[in-house]
Amino acid sequence: MITVAVDAMGGDLGPEAVVEGVCTISREDAPIQVLLVGDGAVLTPLLETQRYDPTRLALAHASLHCSQNDKPKAFLDANPECSVLLASDLVARGEAQAVVSCGNTGALILAASQKFTRLPGIRRAALAAVHPTERVHGPHNDPFALMLDVGATLTATAEDLVGFAVMGSAYAQVISDTESPLVALLSNGGEAHKGTPAIVEAHARLLGHKGINFAGNVEGLDIPKGTVDVVVCEGFLGNVVLKMLEGVSEVVADIAKDAYARKFLWKMGLTMLSEGIRQIRTMTDWREYGGAPVLGFDHVVIKAHGRSNPQAIRNAVRVARKAVDRGLADKIREGMAYVIEAGDAPD
Amino acid sequence: MITVAVDAMGGDLGPEAVVEGVCTISREDAPIQVLLVGDGAVLTPLLETQRYDPTRLALAHASLHCSQNDKPKAFLDANPECSVLLASDLVARGEAQAVVSCGNTGALILAASQKFTRLPGIRRAALAAVHPTERVHGPHNDPFALMLDVGATLTATAEDLVGFAVMGSAYAQVISDTESPLVALLSNGGEAHKGTPAIVEAHARLLGHKGINFAGNVEGLDIPKGTVDVVVCEGFLGNVVLKMLEGVSEVVADIAKDAYARKFLWKMGLTMLSEGIRQIRTMTDWREYGGAPVLGFDHVVIKAHGRSNPQAIRNAVRVARKAVDRGLADKIREGMAYVIEAGDAPD
Repeated sequence: MITVAVDAMGGDLGPEAVVEGVCTISREDAPIQVLLVGDGAVLTPLLETQRYDPTRLALAHASLHCSQNDKPKAFLDANPECSVLLASDLVARGEAQAVVSCGNTGALILAASQKFTRLPGIRRAALAAVHPTERVHGPHNDPFALMLDVGATLTATAEDLVGFAVMGSAYAQVISDTESPLVALLSNGGEAHKGTPAIVEAHARLLGHKGINFAGNVEGLDIPKGTVDVVVCEGFLGNVVLKMLEGVSEVVADIAKDAYARKFLWKMGLTMLSEGIRQIRTMTDWREYGGAPVLGFDHVVIKAHGRSNPQAIRNAVRVARKAVDRGLADKIREGMAYVIEAGDAPD
Repeated sequence: MITVAVDAMGGDLGPEAVVEGVCTISREDAPIQVLLVGDGAVLTPLLETQRYDPTRLALAHASLHCSQNDKPKAFLDANPECSVLLASDLVARGEAQAVVSCGNTGALILAASQKFTRLPGIRRAALAAVHPTERVHGPHNDPFALMLDVGATLTATAEDLVGFAVMGSAYAQVISDTESPLVALLSNGGEAHKGTPAIVEAHARLLGHKGINFAGNVEGLDIPKGTVDVVVCEGFLGNVVLKMLEGVSEVVADIAKDAYARKFLWKMGLTMLSEGIRQIRTMTDWREYGGAPVLGFDHVVIKAHGRSNPQAIRNAVRVARKAVDRGLADKIREGMAYVIEAGDAPD
């Protein structure tokens, strides 16, 4: 049985969504134990409104939490007992094997770096996220690909990018069952000399690496197409790109809603297309995908989207379990061993 | 009468598309004279297949041109008589007032920097492009916004970003008749402290500038929504973002085509939506927008898309005329005067 520490506080939909999600898990077959971390005075009454298996769901009280508006560093320094630090500490002490949070992203990354150890050769953690793609990936025909870093840090050196490639490849293996994921650097052209100096250098280093199925550079065009399984870039770029994809789906939804309200023929047309629209919506619905992993530590860390509903929380916890079960950290260690051997890891 | 030098060579659709586009212009009311630059042995037979007004269309022979596969710097150094250099030279000598090309982008920017003078305070030229947005802009309700730099250079200092803001604002005024365009920096968060050091510094400088209607930072989400009229970023980021938007529209088109072929109900639905789909297609059809300006020089330089059809070439030439007519370079000079006055221009 794997135990997942779930920070119940700080999500956009409040602790209600988290409580409902973990209660569902406690009633399911998957062998997952949940430690629900947060303010007992808030969570206990919420639990009373839900059906759950008390042998598989326990509460760990933390009266404070870092909200979206708090500055993570200052808040965590001032409140060492806050929920995200307690949840991470439970994992560090071996009482749980993974942490999940839909609260402040910076606070989660900071808590992980305070409580966990970075894997050998990894200088910086990365936040990875899946995005919908036209092409499907892996043996389950997943209609999405992985991108990292999407904002754990802003800039990345060549060594960092190589580390991201190793971590992304390991995560895609673990989560999508893709045996040898195709990994590429995001750049402004396919040729090896295209991109910033860090990208050009990372390209040269990745060409020689065992254990990474390196496809070279891809361009912006390849992101929605899904040309590769893992797209590697610095955090600032990944953040802008990912938010832009969110923006595009919002705009498409707005246009469709608008059109639906406006015209009879449009209404008829959209009704006829409704099955397909539902399909596309599922495909682009990030809540289905179970959150974004923070990669680079000796423990599994999953950031669920701030707007996670109960279903998304449930998926994030299940993804956390899968990553623990399949030895994500060890897979990254193995990949980094080649990098360290080649002398390409930072000191 | 304004004369535009049009490099006929190097587009993906060959000189045929360019010749057809400029022949159309020669028959229209707009007072534009075209100097068609390229290989006479190729262009003369093409002209013979078209109807055009010979008093408004003349040929300037250049036997060589820089193709998409040539390295711009090496090619231009070795071939000072090539079409893009001749076209730019005609402008520098006063025989034309603007240059338009759908050939190699790097070669056009290089030719411009060899033949033209950078405007006071501008250290780097920028390539600007329009992208479709949900919100409309300016008095004509244009369904697009401007983004720069999208790839003239890779990285940008704070001073460069301030220059891009001034140039983008001037271009939006000239082209979209927007009196005081809303300009923002693209970053990973709205707050003034978010982003790379260059962005944070540019933010602080832009806050104080007269002549720029500065909206602060926008995020990836705001690009498809069209929150502002002008989005400012470094060239590497702009290139990835712009190509990604192209990718998204290609994917949507693919999905619709696929769906149309597959199912009766989809077919019915799409037929009923056809008017709306046509609208959206027009909205996202870049060929309508007349190309991307290379900003920062004392002359008007327009890069038409490599895949430009005759209609796109015609629009690019008309945009070039408009930019000359309305004094684009002078508008940028005015804006930069404030920046220089504030001591914020590079030495």
